[in-house]
Amino acid sequence: MYEVLRTEGRAKRARLKTVHGLIETPVFMNVGTAGAIKGGISSPELKGLKTQVELCNTYHLHVRPGDEVVKKLGGIRKFMNWDGPVLTDSGGFQVFSLAKLRKIKEEGVTFHSHVDGRKIFMGPEESMKIQSNLGSTIAMAFDECPNALAERSYVEESVDRTTRWLSRCKTELKRLNALPDAVNPDQLLFGINQGAVYDDIRIRHAREIAELDLDGYAVGGLAVGETHEQMYHVLDQVVPYLPKDKPTYLMGVGTPENIIEGVYRGIDFFDCVYPSRNGRHGHAYTNRGHLNLLNAKYELDDRPIDPECGCPVCRSHSRAYIRHLLKANEILGMRLLVMHNLYFYNNLMEEIREALDEGHFESYRRMRLGTLAENVGKH
Amino acid sequence: MYEVLRTEGRAKRARLKTVHGLIETPVFMNVGTAGAIKGGISSPELKGLKTQVELCNTYHLHVRPGDEVVKKLGGIRKFMNWDGPVLTDSGGFQVFSLAKLRKIKEEGVTFHSHVDGRKIFMGPEESMKIQSNLGSTIAMAFDECPNALAERSYVEESVDRTTRWLSRCKTELKRLNALPDAVNPDQLLFGINQGAVYDDIRIRHAREIAELDLDGYAVGGLAVGETHEQMYHVLDQVVPYLPKDKPTYLMGVGTPENIIEGVYRGIDFFDCVYPSRNGRHGHAYTNRGHLNLLNAKYELDDRPIDPECGCPVCRSHSRAYIRHLLKANEILGMRLLVMHNLYFYNNLMEEIREALDEGHFESYRRMRLGTLAENVGKH
Repeated sequence: MYEVLRTEGRAKRARLKTVHGLIETPVFMNVGTAGAIKGGISSPELKGLKTQVELCNTYHLHVRPGDEVVKKLGGIRKFMNWDGPVLTDSGGFQVFSLAKLRKIKEEGVTFHSHVDGRKIFMGPEESMKIQSNLGSTIAMAFDECPNALAERSYVEESVDRTTRWLSRCKTELKRLNALPDAVNPDQLLFGINQGAVYDDIRIRHAREIAELDLDGYAVGGLAVGETHEQMYHVLDQVVPYLPKDKPTYLMGVGTPENIIEGVYRGIDFFDCVYPSRNGRHGHAYTNRGHLNLLNAKYELDDRPIDPECGCPVCRSHSRAYIRHLLKANEILGMRLLVMHNLYFYNNLMEEIREALDEGHFESYRRMRLGTLAENVGKH
Repeated sequence: MYEVLRTEGRAKRARLKTVHGLIETPVFMNVGTAGAIKGGISSPELKGLKTQVELCNTYHLHVRPGDEVVKKLGGIRKFMNWDGPVLTDSGGFQVFSLAKLRKIKEEGVTFHSHVDGRKIFMGPEESMKIQSNLGSTIAMAFDECPNALAERSYVEESVDRTTRWLSRCKTELKRLNALPDAVNPDQLLFGINQGAVYDDIRIRHAREIAELDLDGYAVGGLAVGETHEQMYHVLDQVVPYLPKDKPTYLMGVGTPENIIEGVYRGIDFFDCVYPSRNGRHGHAYTNRGHLNLLNAKYELDDRPIDPECGCPVCRSHSRAYIRHLLKANEILGMRLLVMHNLYFYNNLMEEIREALDEGHFESYRRMRLGTLAENVGKH
């Protein structure tokens, strides 16, 4: 079901066949936290933005509208009217970053909802149950995501628990998939490598989880405080110990540069809130760096955000118009920027795949890292 | 350029040919206050919602981004990327409702901007200049819009001034249209009838402005405090005194029922913020009354907003999903409701035109007023 089509150094051009369609990798998943891309973009519109996979948040959907509600409505894909693949995270990251007053035990984590403060317990079994109810294409294992800069002793203890949790996730999802009312009986499970910036812990953990023969492997706990160099170093160290015949996923990363460097180090899957979050604040990505459309210099600029871009926004709207909308607090301004930025990220992945297909990823990488550094908005 | 195709009682099925395209009437204009429909809908998307005419606000665009900016960018239609007709209001209504500390003189009105408090003067010539810079298809005359329940003596004085202002508007727009750099040298001018709820003042004013041979005539100052019955009474009284061979426009009105009753009394053009404003608050219009999607009973309702509706939203999304989006403060929820509501209004107008074309408007009117009263949301 996962096929590597071509490699160049550690970079892989691959394909993951799922019951919800083919995923061509390297791929950037578009983040639809609560069942919708922030910025007002509907599922049918994502096709025009070259989106392959939507990523939804288990924690958010469990809290609201509730995974039982989503199951009754036919699962997250039917709920959102998205017919492509969906990856759900495990809820772990949100539990450890958003929720308040959490308490970690061997069984799992008790915490208070950020919406209404009610007490929730989530462990590996609960996370698998919620993701099974959501019926995503790919479920993520429930892990603890320690701070990248946490103490070694804490990280060791946490990673060992995450390994035990992973075994429980595998057992539980197998059981849930076999139930007659499973929304997606073919739901896949990806494990998550942790270990902060400690090479030996990362590598030991990678070896341990590789033995579990999961459907894919993520590198978690990065892009949460360490430098880019530390992130690249971890990837250099750990990716060689993840199974070559399984997809790899760098969670929550990152800038266009980070993604290119991640592909270079053997990563297939990426996700990040940057294109939508930064779009909502006036930032537009281009192949020549980014622009801030709130800048006064765009007041009379009738060019599209990126004259080289083929997205629906650049085909129809000027910088001046989008700037006006942002200044006037018209939702449309944010929405157009988010659409452009998602297209930019998805199109970047398409370029990367084409470069790999044609065997010149390394020259593409150098060229693109160069143009991205031009920072067109500064001129 | 204005052709009445058919009549039934006072109701008219007509057509206004403009340099920016044909307008089939009765028509509902979609309100894009600051150059965008509130709720994040772009101009290209309006075609799929059966929109014929966009209405933009002179006051808002003058304050931000500035009409000179819009002119430099090719006019409001190019700015918004809308290739159909645009009507701009005169700014008068906003000056009298939004702005602070206003002072009315024969020359015009001095007021403070609601955005930055700066002092602005607007009179007939200034309003025409701004609308000429925006280059709309139809400009509205600068008038004073007295409260529908204002004292008789104040209304008399105000209406006389509005008549004098109207003559100045006509002279000034003629001059501006003849300038070599006019954005739209064929810009049309509609006059506005005022007189609050005083029949004799309304009728006298209608007779006076009819003599000015303008491109169309609006009834203003309604839907601002009087009852529906008072509004219908004013229309019954005044429309017969407006030229039959010119389009009529009932400004800022209203509910689906108001529109049907307006058409019945001879009105061609309507505009109202209801479909977008109410959509942003969870209200959806249907042929069987309205729903409030925030209601808990829609939590598991997988039907579209209106199973009889052919809009892009009803073809793709369920009540349960939209309700979830609204509860989760996802912009997409608002946006989908605004899209549905605009389609509902535009489609209602299409139904009205078809009924007039086929000569059974009266039976359509009775049928539709009946179904609208069903109030499906109550059941």
